[in-house]
Amino acid sequence: MKIGENYYRSIWFDDSEPGIISVINQEKLPFIFEIRKLQSVEDVYLAIKDMTVRGAPAIGAAGAFGMYLATLEIPIHTNIREHLKNAAEYLISSRPTAVNLAWAVNKVLSNLSDKSNQSSITESALSAAKEICENEIDNCRKIGINGLPLIEGISKTKNGSPVNILTHCNAGWLACIDYGTALAPVFAAQGKGIPVHVWVDETRPRNQGARLTTFELENCGIPYSLVTDNTGGHLMQHGLVDLVIVGSDRTTGRGDVANKIGTYLKALAALDNNVPFYVALPSSSIDFKIDDGLTQIQIEERDPEEINMVTGFAENKIMSVRICPENSHAVNYGFDITPARLITGLITEKGICKASESEINKMFSEKLN
Amino acid sequence: MKIGENYYRSIWFDDSEPGIISVINQEKLPFIFEIRKLQSVEDVYLAIKDMTVRGAPAIGAAGAFGMYLATLEIPIHTNIREHLKNAAEYLISSRPTAVNLAWAVNKVLSNLSDKSNQSSITESALSAAKEICENEIDNCRKIGINGLPLIEGISKTKNGSPVNILTHCNAGWLACIDYGTALAPVFAAQGKGIPVHVWVDETRPRNQGARLTTFELENCGIPYSLVTDNTGGHLMQHGLVDLVIVGSDRTTGRGDVANKIGTYLKALAALDNNVPFYVALPSSSIDFKIDDGLTQIQIEERDPEEINMVTGFAENKIMSVRICPENSHAVNYGFDITPARLITGLITEKGICKASESEINKMFSEKLN
Repeated sequence: MKIGENYYRSIWFDDSEPGIISVINQEKLPFIFEIRKLQSVEDVYLAIKDMTVRGAPAIGAAGAFGMYLATLEIPIHTNIREHLKNAAEYLISSRPTAVNLAWAVNKVLSNLSDKSNQSSITESALSAAKEICENEIDNCRKIGINGLPLIEGISKTKNGSPVNILTHCNAGWLACIDYGTALAPVFAAQGKGIPVHVWVDETRPRNQGARLTTFELENCGIPYSLVTDNTGGHLMQHGLVDLVIVGSDRTTGRGDVANKIGTYLKALAALDNNVPFYVALPSSSIDFKIDDGLTQIQIEERDPEEINMVTGFAENKIMSVRICPENSHAVNYGFDITPARLITGLITEKGICKASESEINKMFSEKLN
Repeated sequence: MKIGENYYRSIWFDDSEPGIISVINQEKLPFIFEIRKLQSVEDVYLAIKDMTVRGAPAIGAAGAFGMYLATLEIPIHTNIREHLKNAAEYLISSRPTAVNLAWAVNKVLSNLSDKSNQSSITESALSAAKEICENEIDNCRKIGINGLPLIEGISKTKNGSPVNILTHCNAGWLACIDYGTALAPVFAAQGKGIPVHVWVDETRPRNQGARLTTFELENCGIPYSLVTDNTGGHLMQHGLVDLVIVGSDRTTGRGDVANKIGTYLKALAALDNNVPFYVALPSSSIDFKIDDGLTQIQIEERDPEEINMVTGFAENKIMSVRICPENSHAVNYGFDITPARLITGLITEKGICKASESEINKMFSEKLN
């Protein structure tokens, strides 16, 4: 997508810079636009862990490129397979909830099993990582196309006034290399001249909505209103939301969705007010091996300081303020599970389906073993 | 309640300081403990508006004392009744949602109708305001006593492990002169040696949970964990909440509750997970004239800067950081409505009743008409 006059992806590899992966530093947006150069497996691990790179598809891509960097770090007299397996485990351990990361890392790894010399391994890893990126971008583009009719249909009932779409966290192009998942249909609607307005949940504790979704929408000239995470229920009670679209960090085989903490509360409010609640996701975020999100998905617990301290911009710099008593005790869960029963449908690269085992299996029959 | 070794109320009048109302500045807690002296009707108006004094019962008390100050500001050659009526309207306009404010101000005003000279008016206003305070404190104390058996009952099933209570915003003693509403049963449980643990919603945008509820619990030595407003649903899904208790800014005759924005979302999650959801309130916050909270209660819309900027402590001072792009557009609703159907019961000074017109009327039959 564009920032000003320039086209960017949130993560990329440039053939003229071998051994370097470039990422937009999402930790510093919207205050400072900084491109970070990742040059080692550890750089990638830390960038995922500290959320310089975030969003399920984007961290999948980072993990895949991390495997490419791993092929450049093979010590002499070492077992190459073991080195790569260790690197894969290390990268996957950077964040536990999103399945794309493990999926992408393992996809690159399995691509290397029949290669023996280092340069062919490196070449294969790079080409596998690039392919994952291009596929994910294409999937997001298709999610936009497939979600568009939902917005178009609502727009026809609104007599020219904008379709109000609520989203939680950031599932735009920054999270997804390009296009986005939840925001892809919104960008597509804008492209077709359909009037839209986005309610942006600020998404505490890391404020990805306040910092990144607003940044993306502002850059595209799409009208939006930032609200606290507490506000969505009130908006829906008063008919101010036509449609909810969120992303997914992991979707189970029966359609339970792990997404940024607070998503579940919005799904409950949507049901209580008859507002359609859609989840947009590439099939790379479906974990066909599990059914029950509540018992089978590990929910990341992060540093309590992310709650105690709020980061923002003041006095010409990025800084953090403490919002509670010193030594206050906080607990910081990163995700929650929205059960399939609360989800109107899944918007995927192959089309829209119900959040149910049979519909998911039908749509992705080629992925079942 | 105590802060360190000293006993405080959140608002008080000292006979040795006529014409002065003292309040704990809730805007600066927990970072700075400051007592503000309010010496005019305008001081009171501004203190309520900027939330130096906040919480439905506390702003009722402030309004009542504001009327006392109004009796000291009667210009010569003026119509006393009109002056007092104007002062009452001005004070009530400082915040539109809580009903206690209008109730307390009008109660003082009606007390003055048969007085003619200024000193008797002043004396009557002061004694009416003091009486309102003492009654509210007594009501809160009784709310604690009446809510205690709920916690006691759950504790008996927990084999010595703490009863986990989730609360939203601050409805402790700071909000209520003394004791609190939602927290009164928690303080009472601690007094009886029942182990409790409180999940404290931070309560964006003003973070009354992060700043004030934590401060109160910390001071009393009650274990708590601060969480983002997004977290309650996840906690309830995993059996980590035994009971929700919140306060109320206005309760309709059939039991709909206007409380800090986000309360409705927690009520939905409580219902979805079979967690009892109670609202603690003195009857002064019941508006018997209205039924339907959604259409009949005016929801305050506050300055969007409260969302764009987060206030906290850094570099040895209270300061604000911007958490979104410059010129970002935000909308800031202060309250939402929790429909009676989601509420397990109302904890009042007279006992616990269902959130229904017939039960409320039965419990407060003397207040009808």
